[in-house]
Amino acid sequence: MTTPHSHIVKSYDDERQRLLAEILRMGEMAASQLEAALDVIERRDDSAAARVIANDEAIDALEKEISHDVMRLALRGPMARDLREILAALRVSSDIERIGDYAANAAKRSMALNQSPPLPLTRGLNVLAELAVRQLRDVLVAYRDSDAEAAQRIRASDAELDARYTSLFRELLTYMMEDARSITPCTHLLFIAKNLERIGDHATNIAENVWFLVHGDDSLPPREKRDTTNTVG
Amino acid sequence: MTTPHSHIVKSYDDERQRLLAEILRMGEMAASQLEAALDVIERRDDSAAARVIANDEAIDALEKEISHDVMRLALRGPMARDLREILAALRVSSDIERIGDYAANAAKRSMALNQSPPLPLTRGLNVLAELAVRQLRDVLVAYRDSDAEAAQRIRASDAELDARYTSLFRELLTYMMEDARSITPCTHLLFIAKNLERIGDHATNIAENVWFLVHGDDSLPPREKRDTTNTVG
Repeated sequence: MTTPHSHIVKSYDDERQRLLAEILRMGEMAASQLEAALDVIERRDDSAAARVIANDEAIDALEKEISHDVMRLALRGPMARDLREILAALRVSSDIERIGDYAANAAKRSMALNQSPPLPLTRGLNVLAELAVRQLRDVLVAYRDSDAEAAQRIRASDAELDARYTSLFRELLTYMMEDARSITPCTHLLFIAKNLERIGDHATNIAENVWFLVHGDDSLPPREKRDTTNTVG
Repeated sequence: MTTPHSHIVKSYDDERQRLLAEILRMGEMAASQLEAALDVIERRDDSAAARVIANDEAIDALEKEISHDVMRLALRGPMARDLREILAALRVSSDIERIGDYAANAAKRSMALNQSPPLPLTRGLNVLAELAVRQLRDVLVAYRDSDAEAAQRIRASDAELDARYTSLFRELLTYMMEDARSITPCTHLLFIAKNLERIGDHATNIAENVWFLVHGDDSLPPREKRDTTNTVG
């Protein structure tokens, strides 16, 4: 068909595809940033940490661009399903932006860590970080494919990240109690661990938006929570 | 005028007003939650803390409702300025939702604190909390009035909250080093203090959205940052 109407519809769809591609690119940037941040913690490399921090601006800029594209799409007066997509796009890009912030924050804290002798506990962080990166990459695929079932599974496996966080949190406390000199660096590790746990929460938010995209507001099954550090006595 | 067109325009405006009122109500709920959370920390009252935690659901529910209202408004095919309002409404309600989460988290941590003897340092938290609540209430007024100049001032005064947070952070570290038994409760205070600092960041986000609402993407003047705890050695 070559009517003017079909032309408009096609180009609306092009814009949608471009928006999706931008969000996936933003997500991949955040995942790489996260890996880079954990790498600089392990290698104790201040100048690489500075690069991770500077790169966060690119993610922030992409979020702004995405907001504009979303506004342009919304101006075309879309239908209810399109609006659900638009709403999900805004929320997902905002979650990715926060994940980027947490990665940059971990890189910042790595510089503070480099002012104290190395701690053996950074290895526990790596397990946590691998889980967080996996959750993020998996949920981006689920978003790309509008796969609500995969999103639901990813959301359920956030409990593993929470459990690992809780156990690292306890380990860090014990370490601090045994050696007062470790308190300052351990505090940074505590906050980095918390950031990774929060990244899991943002991946969960994205998963919930994939569900919303496909099913609207039909509610998701209840979810197990295993982060009990809020109430650790 | 009583043409069908003016009727539609008027009711669109009614919906906009209703949306604004909902967001302001949501913001006031978050401010009250925050005050209640700090109050339960001071009074060491577990059952009041449980109420604060439960109340967070009302804020979450309101955010969902607001998203629906925003979608209904967007379906009417608004103009560019309306879309800016809609985008700002989504972002502001999402920031308020996060503030509510932080308040609930502080209440949760108060229960953990109640398992240890009282610490003298909770007073430093109160100063931080008062600043955070003031920032939130002020920025809600700026949002209500679309007052970009007030928003800009509120954004600038986030530096004070950051400076207070940094000083409390250092105080808590010193305390932990002096008394290993205080490490676990002080960790909770550290996270609560961090939550309050993050609430200031969310108030700043809201201020930036007020600016965006009025001026579009014309950039804001640069902002002073005084939270240096990421790089405390």
